[in-house]
Amino acid sequence: MSAAKSFQITQTTPFINHIKQQRPLVHCITNDVVQNFTANILLAIGASPAMGIAEQEVAEFVNIADSLLINIGTIHSNTAQSMLLAAAKAQQTQTPWVLDPVAVGAALNYRTEIAYQLLSFNPTVIRGNASEILALNGQKSFSKGPDGQDTTQSALNAAQELAQKYQTIVAMTGDVDYITNGNSTYSITGGDIALTKVTGTGCSLSAMVAAFIANSPDPLSASACACFMMKKAGELANKQGLGTFSISLLDQLSTFNSSL
Amino acid sequence: MSAAKSFQITQTTPFINHIKQQRPLVHCITNDVVQNFTANILLAIGASPAMGIAEQEVAEFVNIADSLLINIGTIHSNTAQSMLLAAAKAQQTQTPWVLDPVAVGAALNYRTEIAYQLLSFNPTVIRGNASEILALNGQKSFSKGPDGQDTTQSALNAAQELAQKYQTIVAMTGDVDYITNGNSTYSITGGDIALTKVTGTGCSLSAMVAAFIANSPDPLSASACACFMMKKAGELANKQGLGTFSISLLDQLSTFNSSL
Amino acid sequence: MSAAKSFQITQTTPFINHIKQQRPLVHCITNDVVQNFTANILLAIGASPAMGIAEQEVAEFVNIADSLLINIGTIHSNTAQSMLLAAAKAQQTQTPWVLDPVAVGAALNYRTEIAYQLLSFNPTVIRGNASEILALNGQKSFSKGPDGQDTTQSALNAAQELAQKYQTIVAMTGDVDYITNGNSTYSITGGDIALTKVTGTGCSLSAMVAAFIANSPDPLSASACACFMMKKAGELANKQGLGTFSISLLDQLSTFNSSL
Repeated sequence: MSAAKSFQITQTTPFINHIKQQRPLVHCITNDVVQNFTANILLAIGASPAMGIAEQEVAEFVNIADSLLINIGTIHSNTAQSMLLAAAKAQQTQTPWVLDPVAVGAALNYRTEIAYQLLSFNPTVIRGNASEILALNGQKSFSKGPDGQDTTQSALNAAQELAQKYQTIVAMTGDVDYITNGNSTYSITGGDIALTKVTGTGCSLSAMVAAFIANSPDPLSASACACFMMKKAGELANKQGLGTFSISLLDQLSTFNSSL
Repeated sequence: MSAAKSFQITQTTPFINHIKQQRPLVHCITNDVVQNFTANILLAIGASPAMGIAEQEVAEFVNIADSLLINIGTIHSNTAQSMLLAAAKAQQTQTPWVLDPVAVGAALNYRTEIAYQLLSFNPTVIRGNASEILALNGQKSFSKGPDGQDTTQSALNAAQELAQKYQTIVAMTGDVDYITNGNSTYSITGGDIALTKVTGTGCSLSAMVAAFIANSPDPLSASACACFMMKKAGELANKQGLGTFSISLLDQLSTFNSSL
Repeated sequence: MSAAKSFQITQTTPFINHIKQQRPLVHCITNDVVQNFTANILLAIGASPAMGIAEQEVAEFVNIADSLLINIGTIHSNTAQSMLLAAAKAQQTQTPWVLDPVAVGAALNYRTEIAYQLLSFNPTVIRGNASEILALNGQKSFSKGPDGQDTTQSALNAAQELAQKYQTIVAMTGDVDYITNGNSTYSITGGDIALTKVTGTGCSLSAMVAAFIANSPDPLSASACACFMMKKAGELANKQGLGTFSISLLDQLSTFNSSL
């Protein structure tokens, strides 16, 4: 992949203002642990969350939404069918959507199988950690539940291959974030270790990516901006303890200095 | 509706003290996004939350509860049946109950149909935004998921009609809150725009209404007091960012100056 | 039970450091209200939470987990089966596990029946309030939903009998916490009334107990340390309001002074 072009984020203002002006409705079928935090993070950046999960209405939600997030963290047979219906509808209506394949890998077969079914509906972006990206690319990964133990550097080739194979964007986050369409790759450094010690920061970032790609002409750069914004907010947030950090992270996102 | 009597809240102390003294058990079948925030808000005002959802036990919960909240935000075929059983039991035992018809309207048929079924069990209060009240009253509404886009002023007649039609109280909240039984109407101004940017403030207000009407001889005034308390807490809360605001809102509710 | 040995906690450092070094994966099948708070509390003390709930994968989660928590607070027919499967797997793999029998008692039959089924899979620890422990021991209890109204002092004999009957540890928390295996009993005083006014502190303590007993040679002392840590964090947390308290509690747990 030596021919891949490499980018740094330089300009976030237009992307952030785009959300504030459009107030995109982001439909989220996400895990039970992070629904509240995810909704609050979407509201903080100026988007509007919707969280319906019933099979009877997820297609209707996709109809009115500007983008969709599917996160399989607490997948259940009751919600798996809703996820598949929503993804199918998003493909049909060309609604941009993000797949967050939480904890896929050899140890957990059910969710891995559903993740592959979801992949067949052409997600606009796959947002995951290195272990999840390696697993989706059919490679050996080291994870322990939702916490992956592979580095993003070691999985960069896998991310680029996966993006090419599925004609999608892979936003792989970790110590360094890589956002790639298989040809062009953004890399983002920074952030803070505390981001890994509050539940739902990764899941909520996937929702932010969904907000950023809504009605966007450049989903690759938009996805990279979302990742940059989360890392920067993590750097700026108060770290006197993990409770304060999670609240301060919301404060930083809701008052983000878009002149960066 | 020119004959409707109009009221302002002047005295919240007796209502707030009533909750602190009685510590009502409020059974909540509410949406997955806001269960935690709702429980914490109920505890903050001195009520006791219960959150059971199984078909096998919701009637038992209603039996021991002082009031009931049903919120259809993340309704699913698994919980719809529980909601109907709980509402039927509340009607039978004359337990006061609140219906929060989240996001009903033409775009979302399943939840709208369930909301009408729930209405047949005589809710004591319907708490919703203007778009939801218009939709329940069979009128055209403009909403985008859970965020309504109609003003409460434009929906006041609908609220009064709906209250009369179902012999209930309608607590319609927004820029101005109107709480009406079809004949007498409280109007409440104030509050803060930040209340619309934290998920679950409306849903939790519905739970507060359920706490205020428990064992109350005057559910109309009690409902209006709940709305007033939320608006006032929103005014007083720290607004340095949306994370801080949500925590400060809980602080304000838990230390509310009942001498207002 | 006059022959029971009585202990006070004197040394928490080794137990707390054990978690930070091992970073145990604690699989939680817990109630919808507290999943987020529970995950954040586990992360705060240095453990790693996993929250899968599907019947198809709970056994796989137990396979990779260091310990398991089952909390029946919002039990549903969809999750009851998952709980039973996970408990059976934990028994088979000798994975230490904690049962939190939320609100069991005469008023709520469904969950009480499931709790007894779960008991047959030999939980390592049962963590509950006095009313729940009395109820599980077949005695009359006074509870109103999840809030018990019996004192731990009045239920101490029941806790010791229950521990002997099921060859388990009972961690009964309240004004005074008692942690007993039927022969030896720790008692822990202190804490703060605010701990009873934030939802999920008891449920999250059960998860902390699960983290402390992971790979522990002394689960009785480990369970007592978890209870001590929660009481102490509650004493130290900022009490300017219940919102601030809940965040400060997380701060205190994440920065706990292990030299106590």
